[in-house]
Amino acid sequence: MTRRLELHPDRLFPADPTTRSIARALYAEIARLPIVSPHGHTDARWFADNMPWTDATSLLLAPDHYIFRMLHSQGIALEALAIPSRQGVPATDPRAAWRVFAEHIHLFRGTPSQLWLDHVFADVFGFDIALEAATADLYYDRIAELLATDAFRPRALFDRFQIDFLATTEGAQDDLSAHHRIQQSGWPGRVVTTYRPDGVIDVEHEAFKPAMARFAELTGEDVYDWPGYLAAHRKRRADFRAAGATATDHGHPTAATANLTPAESEALFAKITRGDWTPADAELFRAQMLTEMAAMSIEDGMVMQLHPGSFRNHNAALFASHGRDKGADMPMRVDYVAALKPLLDRFGSSTDLSIILFTLDESTYSRELAPLAGHYPCLTLGPPWWFHDSPEGMRRFREMTTETAGFYNTAGFNDDTRAFLSIPARHDVARRMDCGFLAQLVAEHRLADWEALDLAHELTSGLVRRAYRLDQPTSGA
Amino acid sequence: MTRRLELHPDRLFPADPTTRSIARALYAEIARLPIVSPHGHTDARWFADNMPWTDATSLLLAPDHYIFRMLHSQGIALEALAIPSRQGVPATDPRAAWRVFAEHIHLFRGTPSQLWLDHVFADVFGFDIALEAATADLYYDRIAELLATDAFRPRALFDRFQIDFLATTEGAQDDLSAHHRIQQSGWPGRVVTTYRPDGVIDVEHEAFKPAMARFAELTGEDVYDWPGYLAAHRKRRADFRAAGATATDHGHPTAATANLTPAESEALFAKITRGDWTPADAELFRAQMLTEMAAMSIEDGMVMQLHPGSFRNHNAALFASHGRDKGADMPMRVDYVAALKPLLDRFGSSTDLSIILFTLDESTYSRELAPLAGHYPCLTLGPPWWFHDSPEGMRRFREMTTETAGFYNTAGFNDDTRAFLSIPARHDVARRMDCGFLAQLVAEHRLADWEALDLAHELTSGLVRRAYRLDQPTSGA
Amino acid sequence: MTRRLELHPDRLFPADPTTRSIARALYAEIARLPIVSPHGHTDARWFADNMPWTDATSLLLAPDHYIFRMLHSQGIALEALAIPSRQGVPATDPRAAWRVFAEHIHLFRGTPSQLWLDHVFADVFGFDIALEAATADLYYDRIAELLATDAFRPRALFDRFQIDFLATTEGAQDDLSAHHRIQQSGWPGRVVTTYRPDGVIDVEHEAFKPAMARFAELTGEDVYDWPGYLAAHRKRRADFRAAGATATDHGHPTAATANLTPAESEALFAKITRGDWTPADAELFRAQMLTEMAAMSIEDGMVMQLHPGSFRNHNAALFASHGRDKGADMPMRVDYVAALKPLLDRFGSSTDLSIILFTLDESTYSRELAPLAGHYPCLTLGPPWWFHDSPEGMRRFREMTTETAGFYNTAGFNDDTRAFLSIPARHDVARRMDCGFLAQLVAEHRLADWEALDLAHELTSGLVRRAYRLDQPTSGA
Repeated sequence: MTRRLELHPDRLFPADPTTRSIARALYAEIARLPIVSPHGHTDARWFADNMPWTDATSLLLAPDHYIFRMLHSQGIALEALAIPSRQGVPATDPRAAWRVFAEHIHLFRGTPSQLWLDHVFADVFGFDIALEAATADLYYDRIAELLATDAFRPRALFDRFQIDFLATTEGAQDDLSAHHRIQQSGWPGRVVTTYRPDGVIDVEHEAFKPAMARFAELTGEDVYDWPGYLAAHRKRRADFRAAGATATDHGHPTAATANLTPAESEALFAKITRGDWTPADAELFRAQMLTEMAAMSIEDGMVMQLHPGSFRNHNAALFASHGRDKGADMPMRVDYVAALKPLLDRFGSSTDLSIILFTLDESTYSRELAPLAGHYPCLTLGPPWWFHDSPEGMRRFREMTTETAGFYNTAGFNDDTRAFLSIPARHDVARRMDCGFLAQLVAEHRLADWEALDLAHELTSGLVRRAYRLDQPTSGA
Repeated sequence: MTRRLELHPDRLFPADPTTRSIARALYAEIARLPIVSPHGHTDARWFADNMPWTDATSLLLAPDHYIFRMLHSQGIALEALAIPSRQGVPATDPRAAWRVFAEHIHLFRGTPSQLWLDHVFADVFGFDIALEAATADLYYDRIAELLATDAFRPRALFDRFQIDFLATTEGAQDDLSAHHRIQQSGWPGRVVTTYRPDGVIDVEHEAFKPAMARFAELTGEDVYDWPGYLAAHRKRRADFRAAGATATDHGHPTAATANLTPAESEALFAKITRGDWTPADAELFRAQMLTEMAAMSIEDGMVMQLHPGSFRNHNAALFASHGRDKGADMPMRVDYVAALKPLLDRFGSSTDLSIILFTLDESTYSRELAPLAGHYPCLTLGPPWWFHDSPEGMRRFREMTTETAGFYNTAGFNDDTRAFLSIPARHDVARRMDCGFLAQLVAEHRLADWEALDLAHELTSGLVRRAYRLDQPTSGA
Repeated sequence: MTRRLELHPDRLFPADPTTRSIARALYAEIARLPIVSPHGHTDARWFADNMPWTDATSLLLAPDHYIFRMLHSQGIALEALAIPSRQGVPATDPRAAWRVFAEHIHLFRGTPSQLWLDHVFADVFGFDIALEAATADLYYDRIAELLATDAFRPRALFDRFQIDFLATTEGAQDDLSAHHRIQQSGWPGRVVTTYRPDGVIDVEHEAFKPAMARFAELTGEDVYDWPGYLAAHRKRRADFRAAGATATDHGHPTAATANLTPAESEALFAKITRGDWTPADAELFRAQMLTEMAAMSIEDGMVMQLHPGSFRNHNAALFASHGRDKGADMPMRVDYVAALKPLLDRFGSSTDLSIILFTLDESTYSRELAPLAGHYPCLTLGPPWWFHDSPEGMRRFREMTTETAGFYNTAGFNDDTRAFLSIPARHDVARRMDCGFLAQLVAEHRLADWEALDLAHELTSGLVRRAYRLDQPTSGA
């Protein structure tokens, strides 16, 4: 007997009937607003080429590190899930991989992956029975059928999802050809890039040297010389702005910033390029580069996003066999108050600078992030990130930041995903949780109903558009 | 059309009807108990001189760092708010400043400032329409009118607020003339001082030298000699006790304590006074002085308050232009378990010592503070402080400390404010949140109703009176 | 007038009626399942010898550090409670000690001790009036009477409590004679030991030398030589497995692990045994020994438990007078992500290794522990430990770990207690809190009712049995 799959209209709303009815009313007002996705990791080629996806495993399973990390934690080999290794995509039959996933679907109970998957299955693919071992093949076949239709091509889904803005992320060493194809295609979807220069800033990254070589090639600058290196960043930032970017992104191990003199920076950069740097030099260089990026943001108007605090590739054996981004990144404790001071000492009063802060360390919400954002005009809080992009994570974020930073120093929602089909699901979870939070404030008479309604719109649309400057002409565009 | 302003009688109570009705019943029993305010920053001259306040801006806006930090975070210049800088009070028209505030009142949605302001506007000034751009002038004028009446002079409000005890905070280098005038006036209000010697302990404070000079002058001791310095503290502590003080207060960057030998202390002090100290020396001296203050507390019975973990004056540009206490202090991660050990090793078993611990780092509630207070007789937990003096902050405090420290190792509520008119509002929030927390325990059958009622009284009156020794004769008085 | 004592059938369930009724239904299904207690500190001699306990004070008060730490925090001397010191059991009349406890029972309001005590009093002893000053003697006498009956001997209570499995903890230097007597007695109760080698690993422990001497004696190995030392561990692990152990336990100050070469390990061990080690050497040796223990666990199949982060014997005066385990241990901030990497780099991919992680630092739940357990197959999360073994602690644990680690990377409940009579109470609290958490997920449509029922069984039985390998033949048994 198969289980029914049904998305309950009241899901994620607080159980108390009064609060729930307030939440339901708020949600009804904003549920259908267009999606603004200002930070994520979808592939621009999907929208450039509009080719159909082929199967459930390569579309839904293999790219979703939330899913395969959980399966891995229970002893399932990545090979069995058809996850690519350094040797390439394993010979695993994708249907067999899908069956393994379906047999273990209970592992996701209580996780956001379950919520997202149910939404994708029910709402995107129209299933009304649940995925489980018995329905694995039925799911696999039906998904393949649908993906072969025009209605499931990337651009069609983009329209169906009512996406108003979608940012991808590219490196300083990446070409932007897919974005150029989108721009030249005449397709009206707004899919833009984001400048992520980590690859040419983090000398500890294993691909720093080839990234620098490519950076030199793309810019024609002498990137091994400090002024040339900075000039190359300026050129590429202009390229990215021309491809619609409104923001940069920085995924450093820590939030450290520095404020060296030009001579000190140049001497440090010389060590970096000569290769006789220590880990402390590598850290200081990343720190100084955040400050340099802030300086360039003041020039060109791009919003900076800081995503610090991930210990990348924690599993040494898995990194050796499978490389990066295989669900083995771990959060670390992060300091912001001392770390950001050098940058803030230099540019904290600028009215042109805008930095959106993210964290994987929830203990910083009430202790550091809300107080910083509740004082500095240039700082805004990004939404709960990665492990914390979940109902409880969102609840903690609002509970721990609102009283000090208010709602207006936050930046709306980011889905931050490479799982394109889950984008509506993720935004829906955020909207429901925000409405539930606002409803509780109304039920406890901490907010008037009309204020809550205004805030529901702000949390869905207004804040994100302003934080990412979506409605400002980009200086390079 | 103007918005109504109304304080809902059930505000801040949990939405569940059963829990709410328990909370309401508990609150009804303690809502009108007199206010005990054992730690705060009101100005003793208000009560000494009983002069009328003049206008909304200088009374409600300019001294309230919660308000102007939020406005600053959204890019509003402090000048526009008539906040004094190092150059003095700006020429800004106070009415214009009030209008700026009113236009941005939405920024405070979901913050405790909104709760406090609504209470002050509705309950103290009797407004029944909300502050917004359209009512800014009406508010400004009506407040000025009321402030000119006798009913709004400091002593009249003190009585109307039913304040039973109010402590201000003065430095070791401050004279106590305002307190002396209060004592000599025959006015029965109990307004006392608190001994805060940070200014003559923290050599990194920019005003350490003049503070020491004044300390010498006020005591007639050779404060640049270790025994003379300690004797000066003893003299001033006696002065403060004579002015009603029952407590001292220590606002160090960390909770570090030390237990040096007299010879080591003397040598360290010599470095401090000679000026050839390092930051580590400065920290060690503050640490040692906490232990010295504990020794003197055992002698004279004054309760010690520790408020560690604030990174003062984080915004360098703002500090340069506006000086201290301008909403730019940031919490830092704080350690207590290792930090307090030297002091506790020396005096932890004393039955005469009482130390009230505060934190800006909520991660320490369940990890360090509750276990420490749940073991050491001399340690008590102060209420949620500063950024955490808010509904969610209070909820987290109770949820994270009660199970390990119980209710009886906590110290009731502190308003810790310089915003005198908000004192009833702040105590009301605390009473409502405590009743809501107790109601939840009753609703979940974790506490009997009669126990909750007893605890509601303890949390409002009993604990604070005992923790601050308000009903003991002070040895110097 | 005495107060009634009554265990409300809905205690600890959420107040919302819908959620409560779901919780009640879930609980009804699992409330009577047998108890599995895989980690604790009861005394094996109780079950070996089955001698009656004698009185309330020595059974319920003196061994319970939750109780006497709270009383101590309010200034009650341990002597007055008949707590043994280094001089032995004080001459305090046990009845007088019991009265002191009864007079202060209000201190436990809102704490888990209150819940456990009420359960023991009502359910184990059948009281229907509450303990208070007026009933102290009645309680004392009635308990003594009951303890003298056969129905209150250890084995009878073990059966009455429906305990299916009970693990005690013994050191590497302890004989296992009580366990051998249990095995030889023919009594069918499954009471087993746990291998806790800290005493011969932690050179900073004051009894390291005598422990090593006893370790040598019991194993016949040259434990002062590295290979002999490791061989001695292997022998004792085999002894423990023969006495039913399925697990080891490691209570280090930190979670540090190391991965030294054999030569480095040998050199380090030489310093340890010669006595010319530094604190850093002591820490490194503990770190390396965790990795050695992991290697042996892969050989013999014993599950490793890590309980890091307790600052032992924080109160110096109390340690001097009363020794260890007197309620003066304090949690410390703990890092796991960097600390465990050396061990995980070596053995993280092993399918035979199983490590159960505990913490006293709740900030690690969502930041480090859930991400680690949600990726590494060898890592499982133990339940909330010690100060956090409480309703709010359990709620936070589920809220902060489930979304990233799921339910299936957790290990059910541990009572971790030396208070044998409270075991049913503690498991009951955990079952109620788990049912309440599941009920909330159902009420918010985040989980189907049948999934919640399945999970209620898993959280009560399935997970703990699998995590501790209770149904696998132990290799040495």
